[in-house]
This record gives sequence, C-alpha cells and structure tokens, in this order.
Amino acid sequence: MKLTKALPLATALIALPSLGFAQDAEVPAAVPTDAVWILNSLLFLIGGFLVFWMAAGFAMLEAGLVRSKNVTMQLIKNISLFAIASVFYYLIGYNLMYPLGDWAIEGYFSALFPAVGVLEPVGVAIDAVDDAEYASTASDFFFQLMFCATTASIVSGTLAERIKLWPFLIFVVILTSIIYPLQASWKWGGGFLDEMGFLDFAGSTVVHSVGGWAALVGAIILGPRIGKYKDGKTVPMPGSNLALATLGTFILWLGWFGFNGGSQLAMGSIGDVADVSRIFANTNTAAAGGALAALILTQVLYKKPDLTMVLNGCLAGLVSITAEPLTPSLGAATLIGAVGGVIVVFTVPMLDKLKIDDVVGAIPVHLIAGIWGTIAVVLTNPDANLGVQLMSIVIVGAFVVVVSGIVWFILNAIMGLRVSEEAEITGLDMAELGMEAYPEFSKG
Amino acid sequence: MKLTKALPLATALIALPSLGFAQDAEVPAAVPTDAVWILNSLLFLIGGFLVFWMAAGFAMLEAGLVRSKNVTMQLIKNISLFAIASVFYYLIGYNLMYPLGDWAIEGYFSALFPAVGVLEPVGVAIDAVDDAEYASTASDFFFQLMFCATTASIVSGTLAERIKLWPFLIFVVILTSIIYPLQASWKWGGGFLDEMGFLDFAGSTVVHSVGGWAALVGAIILGPRIGKYKDGKTVPMPGSNLALATLGTFILWLGWFGFNGGSQLAMGSIGDVADVSRIFANTNTAAAGGALAALILTQVLYKKPDLTMVLNGCLAGLVSITAEPLTPSLGAATLIGAVGGVIVVFTVPMLDKLKIDDVVGAIPVHLIAGIWGTIAVVLTNPDANLGVQLMSIVIVGAFVVVVSGIVWFILNAIMGLRVSEEAEITGLDMAELGMEAYPEFSKG
Amino acid sequence: MKLTKALPLATALIALPSLGFAQDAEVPAAVPTDAVWILNSLLFLIGGFLVFWMAAGFAMLEAGLVRSKNVTMQLIKNISLFAIASVFYYLIGYNLMYPLGDWAIEGYFSALFPAVGVLEPVGVAIDAVDDAEYASTASDFFFQLMFCATTASIVSGTLAERIKLWPFLIFVVILTSIIYPLQASWKWGGGFLDEMGFLDFAGSTVVHSVGGWAALVGAIILGPRIGKYKDGKTVPMPGSNLALATLGTFILWLGWFGFNGGSQLAMGSIGDVADVSRIFANTNTAAAGGALAALILTQVLYKKPDLTMVLNGCLAGLVSITAEPLTPSLGAATLIGAVGGVIVVFTVPMLDKLKIDDVVGAIPVHLIAGIWGTIAVVLTNPDANLGVQLMSIVIVGAFVVVVSGIVWFILNAIMGLRVSEEAEITGLDMAELGMEAYPEFSKG
Repeated sequence: MKLTKALPLATALIALPSLGFAQDAEVPAAVPTDAVWILNSLLFLIGGFLVFWMAAGFAMLEAGLVRSKNVTMQLIKNISLFAIASVFYYLIGYNLMYPLGDWAIEGYFSALFPAVGVLEPVGVAIDAVDDAEYASTASDFFFQLMFCATTASIVSGTLAERIKLWPFLIFVVILTSIIYPLQASWKWGGGFLDEMGFLDFAGSTVVHSVGGWAALVGAIILGPRIGKYKDGKTVPMPGSNLALATLGTFILWLGWFGFNGGSQLAMGSIGDVADVSRIFANTNTAAAGGALAALILTQVLYKKPDLTMVLNGCLAGLVSITAEPLTPSLGAATLIGAVGGVIVVFTVPMLDKLKIDDVVGAIPVHLIAGIWGTIAVVLTNPDANLGVQLMSIVIVGAFVVVVSGIVWFILNAIMGLRVSEEAEITGLDMAELGMEAYPEFSKG
Repeated sequence: MKLTKALPLATALIALPSLGFAQDAEVPAAVPTDAVWILNSLLFLIGGFLVFWMAAGFAMLEAGLVRSKNVTMQLIKNISLFAIASVFYYLIGYNLMYPLGDWAIEGYFSALFPAVGVLEPVGVAIDAVDDAEYASTASDFFFQLMFCATTASIVSGTLAERIKLWPFLIFVVILTSIIYPLQASWKWGGGFLDEMGFLDFAGSTVVHSVGGWAALVGAIILGPRIGKYKDGKTVPMPGSNLALATLGTFILWLGWFGFNGGSQLAMGSIGDVADVSRIFANTNTAAAGGALAALILTQVLYKKPDLTMVLNGCLAGLVSITAEPLTPSLGAATLIGAVGGVIVVFTVPMLDKLKIDDVVGAIPVHLIAGIWGTIAVVLTNPDANLGVQLMSIVIVGAFVVVVSGIVWFILNAIMGLRVSEEAEITGLDMAELGMEAYPEFSKG
Repeated sequence: MKLTKALPLATALIALPSLGFAQDAEVPAAVPTDAVWILNSLLFLIGGFLVFWMAAGFAMLEAGLVRSKNVTMQLIKNISLFAIASVFYYLIGYNLMYPLGDWAIEGYFSALFPAVGVLEPVGVAIDAVDDAEYASTASDFFFQLMFCATTASIVSGTLAERIKLWPFLIFVVILTSIIYPLQASWKWGGGFLDEMGFLDFAGSTVVHSVGGWAALVGAIILGPRIGKYKDGKTVPMPGSNLALATLGTFILWLGWFGFNGGSQLAMGSIGDVADVSRIFANTNTAAAGGALAALILTQVLYKKPDLTMVLNGCLAGLVSITAEPLTPSLGAATLIGAVGGVIVVFTVPMLDKLKIDDVVGAIPVHLIAGIWGTIAVVLTNPDANLGVQLMSIVIVGAFVVVVSGIVWFILNAIMGLRVSEEAEITGLDMAELGMEAYPEFSKG
C-alpha cells in the first residue's frame, strides 16, 4: 500500500493509452482511462473482500487456540471488534489517515447525511469523480477499512482468556479511530515517514507491528493467566480445537493474497497486473517457507513437529513478506518467510520466559516477524535504507507503546481490565456471558 | 438486482464509449463494448461464487445452532437443498422467472439436449450472443441460481430438529422451481410489481422475506419442538457449536458482498463500478450496525451480551440493507442495519411467546428485517413509494403464505412432516440417518 | 487447462480488436491487447486463489473424516504438503512441466537469485514481457502451482490414520517436483498425449486420477488400518466431525469454480468469458447431480441417506465434469456428475471388499470418477476420440503406478511407512506429535 507511489503511477497510466493515438489527435484516451479506473476499483473490491475474510480467520484461529471455556467470549470479541472498526474507521479514522488531499471526507460527522460523504454519488459520471484518473474512493475506503480492522484482530488473541469484554472493545474504539489511522497517515497518508523514504508495502510495520505492540503492552499490564507460570515453569494450556485453528490459518493465508496483492493499489496496466501476480506468488511462497521452517525446526529441536508452531510459522512467513512482497524473487521470498518461521519457534518460549502470556502467539507472529519483514526490505529493494527502516520501526513502536499504554492504563484504572479470579477459573463464557460454545461437550 | 433497470443502462453503456469517437465516425465502439460485456459477466461470476459460498454459511450457522444429535441431518438438508435448487431452478425456475424476453430458455425440457439451452454456444462470437450489449446469459444464470438457492437455505434453519428429510426436500423442489421464480418474475422478470414501481435492489422481499414466510408457515404447521414451551415458559435449547455458528455468520457476511454488489448487474462503466463500491461499503457497515445494536441492546436488557443475538443482529443488518444498498450514505446504512439488530433482539422472544419455534432465528432475521429493509428504501431512495413498497410486501407475503401453506398441508397429509416423538427425542441423526456428526463426543 | 489451445486463441485475440480499426491503419491495437493481458492474468489470479482454497477444503474434509485421535496429524500433513508443493513445484516442477518454450525458467536453481526467475521483472513494460499477447507468467505460475498441490492433497486422505508423517512428506516432494509435472507436461506442456489428441480440460486424469493412483498404490503397500477388516466384515470407523467434513466439501465446491473456470486460460474476449460462464454453470450442476444421485441411491439401497456418501457424491460429480466442463449442456453436465455420484456409492464398498482401506474415499472420488470423467468427454466433445482417451488414461495410470510404487517401496524399505501398532491404536496425535486436536473433548 503506497498511496503516494500509486498516484503518479495512475497519472502515468492515463498518458500510456493515449500514446497509441498520438498521430490521431482527435481521438481521446477517455475509454481506456475508464477501464483503468474500473480495474483499479475492482482490485480494491476483490482485495477488500479477501482481507475482510481474514477477520473470520482470526476468529477461528483464536477460537481454536483458547480453552473451550473461553471460546464464546473470543468469538464475540472478534465479531464485535470488526463491527467497531467498521463504524469508527468511517466516523473518524479514514479522515485522520488521509487528512490532506482528495481522499479526505469534508467534515467528520457530516458523513452521516446522505449527500455528503466518503462515497461517490450514485451513478457517478467520469467528470464528477474525485479521482478520475485513479479509482473509486468508495472502493478504496472499503479496502483500507479492512486493514484497520486487521490491526484490531491482532490484539484480541494475545489478551484472550482474561480480559473483560467492554474495556477491550473500548480499546478497539481508540485503536481503530485514532492509533491506527494516525500512524498509518505518516506512511500511507503521505506523512513524514513516507517523506523520509520509509518502505512498508502492505504493512509489516503499519498494520502488524502496530497490532503487536498494542497487544504486548496490554499483555504486560494485564499479566499472565492464572497458573500459566508456576515454579519457574510454563504450564501448557493447549487450545481446544486445532481443526478450527488450522482453518483460521488457511483463511488468513487466502486473505493475505488480497492484503498484499491489493496493496499494489492498481491493476489497470500490464506492469501493475504483473506486479500483483508477482506479489501473489511471493506471498504464497513466504507462507510456505515459514511453515516448513517451523515444521523442520520443531522436529529437530523437540523431536516432534508442533502443529501450532507450523500454523504460526506460516503466519509469520506471511507477515515477514508483507513489507516487501514485490521485489523479492521466489527464492528470496521463501527464505524471508522461512526466517519468520524460525523467529516464531524461538520467540514463543522466550516470551514465556519473560512471563508475557500471549495466548495465541500474536506477538512473535505480528510484532517480531513484522519487525523482521520491515528490515528485510533492504535485502531486495534497492530503494530501501536500513537506517530509515529501523528509525520508522522505532517511531511507530514508541508511539503505539506510549498511546496504547496510556489507554490500557486508564481503562484499567476506571473499569478494570481483568475479570475476577473466579470468573477466569470458571471460564469467561459462563461467568461473563452465561453461554457455552460447546454446551454438550463440556469436560467431565 | 433490477434487470429492467439494467437493460437501458447497458444500452447507455454502448453509446458512452463511442462518444469519444464522435468526430471519427468510421472507428466503431466494438472493442469497448466487448470489454463492458466481459466486465459485466465477470461481476456475475464473482458475485455468483460469493453467493454460492453463502450456502456453506447457512450450513455452518444451522449446524452450530442445533443440538449435536441433529447436526448430521441439518448438514444433509443443507447440501441437498442446494443441489435440488441447482437442478430445478435450471429445469423450471429460470424459465418461469424470465418468461418473456431474451433471457428465456426456449422449451423447458429441451435444455437437456446439447445444442439448446440457457448457455451460449461454446466459443461464441459477438454477433451470435443474445445480449451482445450486456453480459453472458450463462453468467447471469449462474448468479440468479444462487439467489434461488439462498431462499431455500433460509427455510431449513427454522424447521430444524423435527422435520423429516424427504418432505422438506420435496418442499424445496416446489419452492425453487415455482414459488421463488414466479414471484421473482413479478419484480426481476419485469412483471407487475416492477411496473408498479416496487423497489427491491437485491431481495429483502424477493429473497429473504419469501424464505421467511415459507419458514413461518412451516413452523406453524409443524409445531414447536418437544419440550420447548413448558408451563408458559420457553426452555432454552442452546446450539451445540457456537464457533461453527460464528463461522457461518462470517461466511454469510462475505457472501453478501456478492449478493448485493452483484445485484448492480453491471460493472462496465465508471458509474457502475462506483455503485458496486458504494454497495460493498454500505453492506459492510449495515452488518456492523446490526451486530453492534444487538451487542449493546443485549448488554442493556440482559446485562450479558448474547453471541447468538450478535450473530443474528449482524445478519439482520445485512437483510435490512439488501432492498437498497446503493442510495444510503454510510451513516444511513449503519442505522438501517442497526434497526435490523434491534428487531432481532425484540422479535426472537416475541415469536417464542407466540409458541412459534424458530430454531435459528431465521424469521426475525429474514422475514421481519426483510420487511423493515423493504420499507427503509423510502428513507434514502426518492424513487420509492411507501404505498407501493407496503403493497408489494403484502402481495408477495400473501402469495407465499397461501402457496407454501397448501404445499406444507398436502405434504403433511400425504407423508407426514414431522418425525416420531421417539426419533425427535433420540435425535434425528441416529433415528433417521443412523449416523452421528460427532460420534466420539456424545454426551454422557 | 489447455495451454496449446490457449496460445492460438490468444493470438486470435490480438487480431480481433484491431479489426475495428481496419480502415484507420495508424491506430494500433496496443490498448485492447493490454486489456486482454490484464484480464487473462486476472483470471489466473482469481482462479488461483479459489484453487488455493481447496487446500483448506481437503484439510477440513479429511480432519472431519478421521477419528479424533488422528486429527492433528491430518492437519499437519495437509498444511505441510501444501507448503512442500509450493516450494518444490517452483524449484523443479514448473520447469519440468513447461520445459520447451517461453514458459520455462532458464536454469533451475538460478531462480533463487533476484534477477532471474519465473516472475516478470517488477513494473514490467509491454515490450519486456515474454507473453506480450497472453498473460503474466507469474499469474500462470501461481495458478499452475495450485493444481500441483491439489494432486498431493488427494493422496493424504486415503493413507490417513496409519502412515508416518515424514515418509509421506518425502513422497509429496517426489510427487510435486517430478511425478505430477512430468505427466502434466505430456498434456499441458504440449507433449505427446496432447499431440495424440488427448482431451482433459482441467484434469480429471492429469490431476485427479494421478492423485488417485498414487493413493491407491500407497494404500495397497500400507495395508488397512488395524481392525478395519475383521472376519470378512468391514468395521465402520466413523469420522469424528461431519460438520467439518461438510465444510470441506463446500470449500472444495467453491474452489472448483476456479479449478475448471480458470482452466479456460483466457478471459479477454466475449467467447472466452462466455465459456468461463458455461464452465461455472456446468461445474455447479455436476456437483449437484453427484450429490443428488448419492442421496437418492443411498436412500433406495440402505433406506437411510448417507451424508458421507452425499459429500463424496458431490465431489465425484465435480471430478467427473473436470475433463470437459465446457461442451456439455446443463442437462448433460448434471447427468455426467450424477454418474460420478453413482460410482461413489458402488465403489466405496467394492474397495472394502478388496481390503483396500481408503479412509476418506479419495480413490472412488478422484481415481474412478476421474476415469469416468475422462471417458465422458467423448459424449459431448466431437473432437474427442475414445481410443485416445482410454490410451491416455492407461499411460498416465501406468506411469504413476510404477513410479509411485517404486517410491513408496523405497521409502518403506528405508524408513518404514507405517507407524507402530501401538501408535496406531493410541492415535497418531499423541503417539507421534504429543498433541491432541480436541484435548478437552476426549472420549471416556
């Protein structure tokens, strides 16, 4: 997602079709330009519904990795956070993210009323659209919204099995209306990180590490689950449904084609669609690399391959390639993803040693592999500068840590973040919601 | 889905590209027209496979909301009803729905033979296609079929846990070959409701309320499950797998982008793709509004948020926006969806008071929110007339109630709709199918 | 997938747009040709992600059809085999499959390095692409890879519950880097089967029967599960989660639109998109036919419809139409699919009589229905020759049986294919992986 890159490109696209008509000046380029606009918008719509689907992936992954007594809570958190992101990114976030140019909504709350808003008028004509040379604003909004929602999805897994519903959802309101959009504007809104030369194609830092930092701070403030760390040892609390967790991983893998491919932001030229194709192939192979690395490494280290590590290795491979899915060769993409898989296998136990209890492994996958992916841009993209990449990681990290820390702290002070000890032991489903996910299959 | 609207539009589209060539009369518009045809067909194909996916959504939602002893039966009903819809909509329904014009298949049963049929000839050339100015008939057939199947999916949930397999499937034959297509022709086939000015973009009435009415009549004739209403109280019978139910809801949400977006019926112009983009964004936010309304309302009313209400609230939001996903602003769409969520929370217990046993809540979601959505068209679309909307709701409702009532009645008289008391208590899976969905996890 | 057919077609496509400009020689066809290239690549990308999704379908189908004690193992096999296919098809397979022409990667291992490889350079211009008249090589690679991975997915189900992880994965390496690509090159790489006139549109033989033969040989060498055949009787070992198995079937059905539709290999002309539409409609109705045939037949034969037969009937319908999804009418496609459903119902018990233990029914579905589908081409495609079809089935079958037999034999000799008796009884999850899929729901 490089909005600033895309705009000049789109301009170039208008020029391109008219070249052929150079000798015949009275034939305008209007029709091909329309087709470019249609194809770009279509990329946003297809990419957008694929990234939407990732919300289901997170829900299934997390529902599969928590214990059965907390599954209903995890499900309600996931669907609610997506609904909140949808509303607040529209009310506040989108404007914060693109405040300066054509992409802004004039007047935040005026968007509630029919004639004004982010969407083009019904049945718009070419001379009435804002971005006549690019794509439908509504399609872009749809696509960008999904990235914002993804950031929130990342947080919910880490804090599972002990955080109360409402403080978590209030945090999501802040995250999706302010924290995510503000820092995203620094890069994708054409802000200072973008001007510095920071490269983050589809959001290893802007999306994944942001979710990861917010999750990390939340996990530290919240503390580990009761009984997780006992006498210096980590007590395994196995997920209740690995079939669901695997389904969630496959859903995320599928959605990631939209996440990275759609971030090309254009599909109306040979060059753009070839790039989107490269990105699809590289994204796939990075996931494969991450999965295989975790498979082999857990076999070597523990003599038994570990499915949850393979799933997280696959996701870490995807996060690792997200900052630069375009320039690597297939071989390089595989290796970049494989490093992500290695990261997961080594950092999951490391977090446990620090007594940071990350229920689903979102911090290794989204934060640490996100940092790796952001650094790895320099390996294949000659435009990348290591110093700038590192500085951007630090700036975004510091911002998210400080702001989300303050928010978590205030929420903790006002309403308490954590359920009672009794509720945690009983399980959040019965204690907080009075409803079990699998009422007929309860243990003994 | 407004076929009659789409045809003049498509005609306009041919004119449009040639405008640019006005000064150069000998250059025809042929190539851009081809591209329009391709893009329109592509919209049907993408929209169609997304709506297909809704069949899986209904299957998972319903499998998750019934008790484990009836899951296998619910699964076999869902996959079989889709298969039946595929065959009978093709054999009979599609012809009934578009009987007058280019879209009709000449000779119902002749379609069995290779050279005649709904599909264009293999490798068709532009001058041999029926709708040279519009789209592939085969792509339209594929898309329309999915709507017919959706109507049948709606019915199966309400009648779960007590209806016999075969009478239900015979009802589906009638529903998908006659009931649905006949009333759909009144609107989408250019019939009298369409001429009256009835507006129903993607089918709050034509699809969702039709399924809802058929389910309502079936539920009344069938009666409630044994033990559901006891001493004036409603006995909760919690669903066996809320993770599956949530997955089903996410699948339906995803599929709905195709359901509503595809119903624009065209994607070959700037205006059309901008409209499709509006529809995607509005559909998403209506679902969010419905989910949040149900979340907040159940918290306020019952002090505990209710996941199944949130899921149904989300679906009701989607149904509510389906009659008019295009004209609302994002704010209006959110509110229209939110009203759907409120409807669910209030009408689910209301049905229970009337002792109408709707296992999955399909009547509130598809019928009552469908009526609301059809009325809500007047709020944002100046072409809508409240009287016409209401009259159309009543006409379609009366038709479906009477015809499906007769069919249910005859089926009940001939073969009995309901399983034996013993079979219902044992569970339909073992009693009727001899097969459990979760054989290793059976309760005590 | 008929690459050789597609190339002349693509050539025709370039000619086509320029027709309109015949009188105006200096206006080139450049722009429409770009659009064709974009649309063809887009078909590969959409088709590709749909076929990718089939990997999740196989994983869910198989996880649902094995007993709970082997679910984790089945999940890790499925995600790992896809990752292996991704890497080895790229390193070796793709080059073997298209060794002669523009589609080849020069130098197998050079592809690891940035500047060389299967993917077009970043931001490629029209005059720098290999297939200026056709589509992005990267999009084709992405699409073709998914077919290779599907072949491997077919094998894992048959051999479930008793094969060791690592020998299976090593077999997948051989299958995806050599066995599949080599025989695929005979048809889709323009090899001798193609020259003979063998017709296999999307791979009833090239994909499905190849997976089926490899599975059959594996099953024979491996032997049946302990206790499966006792005193001349077949002991049922019901799947642990039919909801997952049904979900898997719906996923596969959805993915098959990409599998067959994408195999048209072009979407840049009226004729191509009409063909893709035909294929979507035919694919759907063949699945419906297969499901209904199995539903009715199990009712008639056993007095109780059998969900697993319906699921496999549906899949067999899909496999049956895969060799020729284009030429049949809807009626013919339904019947071709229905025969697939009948095949499943009769051959599943037949295999049991032969004491060939196929855990999920992949041999009837993919091998026997695959043979039927390959023969059925002659019913609707006048270009097909029965002798050639039969000879090709035999040649491919003999090749796969011999080579995979040798590989299975060597693997068995070196490392042993089968887990210990104790591990099999305990379940592969605890014995081999130390991890249960549903740790809280274990029996007794």
